[in-house]
Amino acid sequence: MSRELRFGLIGAGFMGKAHALALHSVGATFGLDTRPVADMIATSSDASAAAAAKRLGFARHTGDWRQLVTDPDIDVVTVCAPLPHREMVLEAIANGKHVLCEKPLASTTDEAKEMQTAAEQAGVVCMVGLNYPKTPASQFARQLIADGALGEIVSLRCVHVEDFLADPNLPIDWRMRQAEAGEAGALGDLGSHCIGMSHWLLGPIREVMAETRIVHTQRPDPDSGEHVAVENDDQAELLVRFENGVTGSLYVSRVGTGHKMGLSYEVVGTEGTIVFDQERLSEIQFYSRQDDPRTQGFRRIPIGPAHPDYGDFCPAPGHGTGYNDTITVEVRDMIAAITGDTADLWPDFADAVYVHRVIDAALESVKAGRWCKVG
Amino acid sequence: MSRELRFGLIGAGFMGKAHALALHSVGATFGLDTRPVADMIATSSDASAAAAAKRLGFARHTGDWRQLVTDPDIDVVTVCAPLPHREMVLEAIANGKHVLCEKPLASTTDEAKEMQTAAEQAGVVCMVGLNYPKTPASQFARQLIADGALGEIVSLRCVHVEDFLADPNLPIDWRMRQAEAGEAGALGDLGSHCIGMSHWLLGPIREVMAETRIVHTQRPDPDSGEHVAVENDDQAELLVRFENGVTGSLYVSRVGTGHKMGLSYEVVGTEGTIVFDQERLSEIQFYSRQDDPRTQGFRRIPIGPAHPDYGDFCPAPGHGTGYNDTITVEVRDMIAAITGDTADLWPDFADAVYVHRVIDAALESVKAGRWCKVG
Amino acid sequence: MSRELRFGLIGAGFMGKAHALALHSVGATFGLDTRPVADMIATSSDASAAAAAKRLGFARHTGDWRQLVTDPDIDVVTVCAPLPHREMVLEAIANGKHVLCEKPLASTTDEAKEMQTAAEQAGVVCMVGLNYPKTPASQFARQLIADGALGEIVSLRCVHVEDFLADPNLPIDWRMRQAEAGEAGALGDLGSHCIGMSHWLLGPIREVMAETRIVHTQRPDPDSGEHVAVENDDQAELLVRFENGVTGSLYVSRVGTGHKMGLSYEVVGTEGTIVFDQERLSEIQFYSRQDDPRTQGFRRIPIGPAHPDYGDFCPAPGHGTGYNDTITVEVRDMIAAITGDTADLWPDFADAVYVHRVIDAALESVKAGRWCKVG
Amino acid sequence: MSRELRFGLIGAGFMGKAHALALHSVGATFGLDTRPVADMIATSSDASAAAAAKRLGFARHTGDWRQLVTDPDIDVVTVCAPLPHREMVLEAIANGKHVLCEKPLASTTDEAKEMQTAAEQAGVVCMVGLNYPKTPASQFARQLIADGALGEIVSLRCVHVEDFLADPNLPIDWRMRQAEAGEAGALGDLGSHCIGMSHWLLGPIREVMAETRIVHTQRPDPDSGEHVAVENDDQAELLVRFENGVTGSLYVSRVGTGHKMGLSYEVVGTEGTIVFDQERLSEIQFYSRQDDPRTQGFRRIPIGPAHPDYGDFCPAPGHGTGYNDTITVEVRDMIAAITGDTADLWPDFADAVYVHRVIDAALESVKAGRWCKVG
Repeated sequence: MSRELRFGLIGAGFMGKAHALALHSVGATFGLDTRPVADMIATSSDASAAAAAKRLGFARHTGDWRQLVTDPDIDVVTVCAPLPHREMVLEAIANGKHVLCEKPLASTTDEAKEMQTAAEQAGVVCMVGLNYPKTPASQFARQLIADGALGEIVSLRCVHVEDFLADPNLPIDWRMRQAEAGEAGALGDLGSHCIGMSHWLLGPIREVMAETRIVHTQRPDPDSGEHVAVENDDQAELLVRFENGVTGSLYVSRVGTGHKMGLSYEVVGTEGTIVFDQERLSEIQFYSRQDDPRTQGFRRIPIGPAHPDYGDFCPAPGHGTGYNDTITVEVRDMIAAITGDTADLWPDFADAVYVHRVIDAALESVKAGRWCKVG
Repeated sequence: MSRELRFGLIGAGFMGKAHALALHSVGATFGLDTRPVADMIATSSDASAAAAAKRLGFARHTGDWRQLVTDPDIDVVTVCAPLPHREMVLEAIANGKHVLCEKPLASTTDEAKEMQTAAEQAGVVCMVGLNYPKTPASQFARQLIADGALGEIVSLRCVHVEDFLADPNLPIDWRMRQAEAGEAGALGDLGSHCIGMSHWLLGPIREVMAETRIVHTQRPDPDSGEHVAVENDDQAELLVRFENGVTGSLYVSRVGTGHKMGLSYEVVGTEGTIVFDQERLSEIQFYSRQDDPRTQGFRRIPIGPAHPDYGDFCPAPGHGTGYNDTITVEVRDMIAAITGDTADLWPDFADAVYVHRVIDAALESVKAGRWCKVG
Repeated sequence: MSRELRFGLIGAGFMGKAHALALHSVGATFGLDTRPVADMIATSSDASAAAAAKRLGFARHTGDWRQLVTDPDIDVVTVCAPLPHREMVLEAIANGKHVLCEKPLASTTDEAKEMQTAAEQAGVVCMVGLNYPKTPASQFARQLIADGALGEIVSLRCVHVEDFLADPNLPIDWRMRQAEAGEAGALGDLGSHCIGMSHWLLGPIREVMAETRIVHTQRPDPDSGEHVAVENDDQAELLVRFENGVTGSLYVSRVGTGHKMGLSYEVVGTEGTIVFDQERLSEIQFYSRQDDPRTQGFRRIPIGPAHPDYGDFCPAPGHGTGYNDTITVEVRDMIAAITGDTADLWPDFADAVYVHRVIDAALESVKAGRWCKVG
Repeated sequence: MSRELRFGLIGAGFMGKAHALALHSVGATFGLDTRPVADMIATSSDASAAAAAKRLGFARHTGDWRQLVTDPDIDVVTVCAPLPHREMVLEAIANGKHVLCEKPLASTTDEAKEMQTAAEQAGVVCMVGLNYPKTPASQFARQLIADGALGEIVSLRCVHVEDFLADPNLPIDWRMRQAEAGEAGALGDLGSHCIGMSHWLLGPIREVMAETRIVHTQRPDPDSGEHVAVENDDQAELLVRFENGVTGSLYVSRVGTGHKMGLSYEVVGTEGTIVFDQERLSEIQFYSRQDDPRTQGFRRIPIGPAHPDYGDFCPAPGHGTGYNDTITVEVRDMIAAITGDTADLWPDFADAVYVHRVIDAALESVKAGRWCKVG
């Protein structure tokens, strides 16, 4: 018999809307026995929450997130509010809720660790929203690696470049202040995606060597117009050594002129190579040394029902999934972990703590000018 | 004040599921005042309908589509059943329902015309599911053309190639029999997309010159295994002359080895050119003669909030929409036509009749070996 | 023992220079036993010929091509002068010279036929400069087709689009006047490349159905500035039926905004498909239905020593050959035919006549509005 | 009045042939007043030299390179022999010859410095064969940077990956032994191209942080078949800081499965970005923030006469130059430096020494695990 999971959503911005759409779609997409219900939404005021509930299709709303996390009918809390998340997450856990929290989980590792511990002690399912590995192509990439289609892996290069701060005249905001966003800028915001993706594909990093740079050192204050200091990095580049011996690099930038959703990677193995670019999320390139020498080349593989999860969105190949579909897969994974249909949720809060630790090691490396171990 | 539109869906296959997902998503995606309700689903038996209702999230179900089209609470009927659609559509119209019918509307032009007439007499909103022009990139292409960014249009070449019948050992099915699918094979199935897309971009075709071919003339009967004749074309190529004087060509194939969702077009103008490929639906290429000679080249434009409808799916550029998002746009257009928020629904049943007439003219041209006017 | 072949070159423009470079390179490139000597160059005056000889590295020069074609030391005459070529070619043949004549061979089929007959009666080697099939990638494409890698061929689509006349303000020139260029505009100039390439890949065309259009019907006279009529087509599109039963299409344009060297083709077979674009001449795409379903996709194959002729230019793959290298291959083929190292020269004057006949059939089809057989 | 430069070429392998072809082509390509003469070739024996002279078109030959470098008629010595080059280069300089030496100039920095000093003292023109920056696209890239089209440069990422040693069963050769190839493997062989290219585009590197790895630690001895140790790196990754403040990275691999001529770079600036890939040497991608927001995207610019040097190879855009054409440009630069037509030869032996010093700093950094300054 089917049952319901009642979701409470905190936040109605970019990611809040994406999660709302996923809640409405995931049941029909995957034919789930356990259906999510878009029950309550919380924003910063009753009025905005009422509007959000109507717009995004929630039954109930509140201007006080505490009411949401303590509501006895809520099973799962999805946190899409801006940082800090700590209090929301801990209160939700304390009330026995499962928690799906958008990235970054925290602005410090200690805070993330505190949430991980709370989640483990409470025995609730907790997930962080590093969604890109859920795209069918990147699920397939992981399969190819696991199947040995690439042979022994010898290199990974992962990049996440965007240009949302390329314009030097854009005013400063919370992302560029240490008090709010933490010490890491692009390294934290986009680096978490690279670190997450490389973890998904190859497992944990053992040590890093990093370089960061603030490209636009000053930006206008939105109120006064005066130029004030940008407090964290616009771009970062990391050499990394994985625990399995693979070496590679990560590169991130929020001033990468021309790149919009520039999360890409190349994984080179002794027998084959994979190349993926999130701006073309419905295809992946694969080269195999086993092909006949005359016809060896990178194959552009359009994602289809032969690949993970795609067939649940569309039975015909090459039609393409989109960004919101990836969030739908993420919510499916969360539900499966809650219902016990998977014992292997990725990424949980322990994975989020790992991401923070890699960033810490990178920041330490920048200061020390040498390789630093991930804590 | 917001109100509801109660949808009844006939069919639970490929397109049925896509429409179910669109019904669940469209309200939150576009923040609609008028919300669709996934009310009732009909399939060929009570048991399968009950399962479909549970799987796809419908409140009610029936094994008899007549019950659905006569139900007083249903406002809109979406027809995703296999051909023939005629009786379903006419009954729905007769009961005052608005109708969104998947393509092809009919297997003959007379049938399509009959439905168009019924819709017009009843004053209900009727739409046919030629969805690809709803993709943000193709909406943007139309804008660029209308804005004059291409200057005077001098050529259109539109292609829809897939390879779902490339394997000669695949058994025969209804698509390859004239009694069920009509006289046109790929010309009808895929040609309708090319004809629809070219209509969206450049308006109606005046006359055509066509060539068709059955590549695999015989296929095994799925039951007996005996080889029986394929009765309609595997590929077709049309020279076309538009009413506005532009010339061009359409090419379709269901045996186009290697192509999965190969709907693509190039529109050449005196000042610029557009190239689009549905397998990369979230980007479009544009060349402008106005660029500096040293830096002229086709620009690969990642679709983003600067382009039609994309921002309702995602506020950040380059993240990509998928196939199901296109259906969501289609359902939004249907709702807007019903609520009077647009006076310009495309494609309505008149447009569907136009598509049939172009196909008729192509079939006539194949026989006559000369140019034939669209009726 | 090695010997020499003394070349006389008529013309020192675009193609004249390309042939001069090929004469200087071909011996060392292919390690030929028979070496070409850049002996004499003829242009329209002694002064310009002297300058050309110095610039392009010829031992002798003349302002009178008759002196060149009658010079007893000249073995081979390369005609790179503007049309008409008839007198030069016939005189050269009459003097026992082998002739390599740039395309188009003639402005009428009768003229081309006259030259073919003269060549055959004189027993000299005569070639026409349709060079693009000599590019290693297109040689490889032909091999793949011949080897059966594509199975049975079901479709060819070949395009040659450039934009050198896209600007409507460009003055009229000889290319746009029937008296000089013939009745066919882009159809003759670029169509000959499409017809030649399709002949190389699939053999002769049996019948055609064509459509042409003059996009810019008037252009300024370069002297008076007055607008005068353009007399032949800016673009043309042909449906074609090959003698082997394959159907396809050819499309050419000299107003194809954005395209510079847009000769491309797709050959679809029951087992595989090839896609090639001359703007990326050092790669070819190949799809095989035999690949594992999970990893099927178009392979981008960088041309290398595993492919025809490439290894003579460079022993390492992916380094790329250029346009002039293709002319070098052409001259190598000419020399091999003269020395008897190949019995299978392509394209000889009979092939040139074939090209003219396809164009004639296309022009006839445009007027008749129906399929016309190639004479 | 024109004059001649008599070239002596040592070596008749890959690069020897490329230089022979360039000598035959460069005069006619660029219409040079000073013509190179392919005078003498030296290989390791009289017999092989005689064969090479005949094959590659040299007037004289010798089995002893000392005879070539001391021949009074030789003006320029091109060294294409395997390492070591030291003695050949120093003897040629001592005899007053200009020297064009293929990379790597030396196996140690001291050796390279010795040659640089000798060249400067003798006042002869000396060049090292880092040819890729001579490709028209990369010349154009440098122009765009210099013109400010990219604004302030914020990042360079340059990669040179090939897969010629991807197969673990390939036997060991000189490249993998320190005694012959030096301490640096891919870092030296391919790294020199990345270091050279980045120098061409952005000027000198100030300090580096490097990581190297031997992927296939043992390979069969070609004679005994026994597995012996590979002595230098298969891949290397460098973080770099340029003297002008730009940061970036270099990545090289000789086991980069799937890559054949994988020299590529991306240069990001505050106003624009350039992307180039040597496997598609006749195009470059450029993005400008100044484009209209609706039509911003990376432009694929086909190289043509609007770009450096291309017009000398072909007057029509998009036709493509090849690898050997790049060598032709290199030889043109060498001749121009000798004739005094340029005062700005790049890369001379000082540039070669710089490349060695960056490699030294990288090797030091690998050992020290920290940033190291370029000497």
